[in-house]
Amino acid sequence: MQQKTAVILRNDQWIYSKRPSGRVSEDNYERRISELSTALSQNEVLIKSVYISVDPYMRIQQHESRTYDVPHPLGIVQRAGVVGQVVASASDNFSEGDWVLAYSGWQTFAKCHASELRKLNPDDAPVSTALGVLGMPGRTAWFGLMEAGKPRPGETLVVSGAAGAVGSLVAQFGKKAGCRVIGIAGGKAKCNFLTDTLHLDAAIDYREFEDSHKLGEELQRTTGGIDVYFDNVGGMITDAVIPLIKLRARIIICGAISQYDGKLDKPELGPRLLQHLLYQRATIQGILARDYTYRMDEMLAIVSPWVKNKEIVFEETIVEGFDKLPEALNSLFEGKNLGKLLVKV
Amino acid sequence: MQQKTAVILRNDQWIYSKRPSGRVSEDNYERRISELSTALSQNEVLIKSVYISVDPYMRIQQHESRTYDVPHPLGIVQRAGVVGQVVASASDNFSEGDWVLAYSGWQTFAKCHASELRKLNPDDAPVSTALGVLGMPGRTAWFGLMEAGKPRPGETLVVSGAAGAVGSLVAQFGKKAGCRVIGIAGGKAKCNFLTDTLHLDAAIDYREFEDSHKLGEELQRTTGGIDVYFDNVGGMITDAVIPLIKLRARIIICGAISQYDGKLDKPELGPRLLQHLLYQRATIQGILARDYTYRMDEMLAIVSPWVKNKEIVFEETIVEGFDKLPEALNSLFEGKNLGKLLVKV
Repeated sequence: MQQKTAVILRNDQWIYSKRPSGRVSEDNYERRISELSTALSQNEVLIKSVYISVDPYMRIQQHESRTYDVPHPLGIVQRAGVVGQVVASASDNFSEGDWVLAYSGWQTFAKCHASELRKLNPDDAPVSTALGVLGMPGRTAWFGLMEAGKPRPGETLVVSGAAGAVGSLVAQFGKKAGCRVIGIAGGKAKCNFLTDTLHLDAAIDYREFEDSHKLGEELQRTTGGIDVYFDNVGGMITDAVIPLIKLRARIIICGAISQYDGKLDKPELGPRLLQHLLYQRATIQGILARDYTYRMDEMLAIVSPWVKNKEIVFEETIVEGFDKLPEALNSLFEGKNLGKLLVKV
Repeated sequence: MQQKTAVILRNDQWIYSKRPSGRVSEDNYERRISELSTALSQNEVLIKSVYISVDPYMRIQQHESRTYDVPHPLGIVQRAGVVGQVVASASDNFSEGDWVLAYSGWQTFAKCHASELRKLNPDDAPVSTALGVLGMPGRTAWFGLMEAGKPRPGETLVVSGAAGAVGSLVAQFGKKAGCRVIGIAGGKAKCNFLTDTLHLDAAIDYREFEDSHKLGEELQRTTGGIDVYFDNVGGMITDAVIPLIKLRARIIICGAISQYDGKLDKPELGPRLLQHLLYQRATIQGILARDYTYRMDEMLAIVSPWVKNKEIVFEETIVEGFDKLPEALNSLFEGKNLGKLLVKV
């Protein structure tokens, strides 16, 4: 592979510099301009970021205590999934202009080893889906529901955060599996999306209920009991759901976004409800996308055709501007976005 | 089978008459003397109670809300497991003097259908074990640990309520399975029992710690992380354990005795900890003895020889006197007894 004469690029970066205590904002980042030479070692590939991901897990890793990883180190580029285009390549497997998925973080350029990249075919699906339905959120939704949730036709599936990147896919996968699906989300617009666009059996706006008891009454009326609960939110929503589980129910803990503004360090108080697992001989299982990375192709084999045939909705909210990254991350916790949130550089 | 001339027996009964709000006591029962004719229909068997069981689950069923069953009805004999002797029989399968296990409740005599009785052989094991190690508590411990806990040699098992009827068996089954076993119990005497008599690897007296944080520090020092947690207690002990689970840990909810004085109706507040399941991709599973009733013989085939060969300790605390039944039931929640608590008529 022929290399051009090296030039120096201006690489714009968001450096994670200060641990947030509540919400995350620009105050937790430093903007840095670094120089990056286009000269490449063997098998290196230089990419230009086009879509940069913001995901709730980033805020988990910003907690002080150990969560599923050691905390995200300070003083380095915020880690994130990125869809970009190859600018220069010293690998036989990649050429200039190729679309790739990388894990290169909040920066406008990155040098990656070829082995870290996945090549994307823009004819198969919009390349941004590699950060959504055909990427980590899709994998989480698919294996979380299918492996841990074990949905059966005729069962009742409740999804919290049902209008989000993972939840909106779980809800649709649940419909495909023959479940009656009830989505929980915040606000009328999201609930309309759940019923009118995703065609769920019902949607509940949790913001209309002052506490878990009132929400529980509505859930009981709507569901009559819950077989599978896919939880992205935690807190009062989960408090409302647990007392309504049916015999041998499966609860999947995929996220707890209501707790990500510092409550993972100092847990909030909530009602003790584990006795319901005993009554119903039910299970709670925590899942993490990384456990299924090696099975990615299994998911793609099933879900890619659905994407191609428009059999599922994969909503994206795209924020324009590299400047907006910290603000976009924070907006996840304000619950303003539908589907997968991306920042376009 | 020859029947003698019928006579009228004086049947002494404890009638469950009033729902307790906190602790259970004599105030929740009425003593009733009923007349019982020894005349029997075909396949009926008349038994005289000898050992009557008191179990924590009885207090669960006294809650107002639905738990794993509808609440125990008021105005009937308190349901309980009983070991008794046949006084008269109209069944070919039972003769006067036979020892049997029945579910005939807190009364001195009972008529049972032959199909409801299990015949006991006093040469195999003390008949009282049919209410303990070779009965419901043994089945709960065996299948709860083996099926839900899936213990592997070298793993660390923590048992709460480790000196109790179920916990003391779980702890010993865990040792047999090659685990390092740490028992949690209340008071020095119980902890000495755990280390000196059951030969557990360590025992922790939870009463020495003012809160779940302090208890958690001690547990962390003692265990270095927990693979399997068998929970009979709930509350602050479980709060201390959950943050210490290791990757793919299994938590078994067998009981929550700390919550049985009314807190199943109005849940107590505790820290939200479900995010730890996500970090560790762990599971919580609720179990109930009745789900394994049909597999009783599997358990007996393994555990009976251990009982015969004195390979496991099956401690019993026997309270003398039918009068003492309500008091004995309440004493379970004071944590005063070692092993299985029985009342001898």
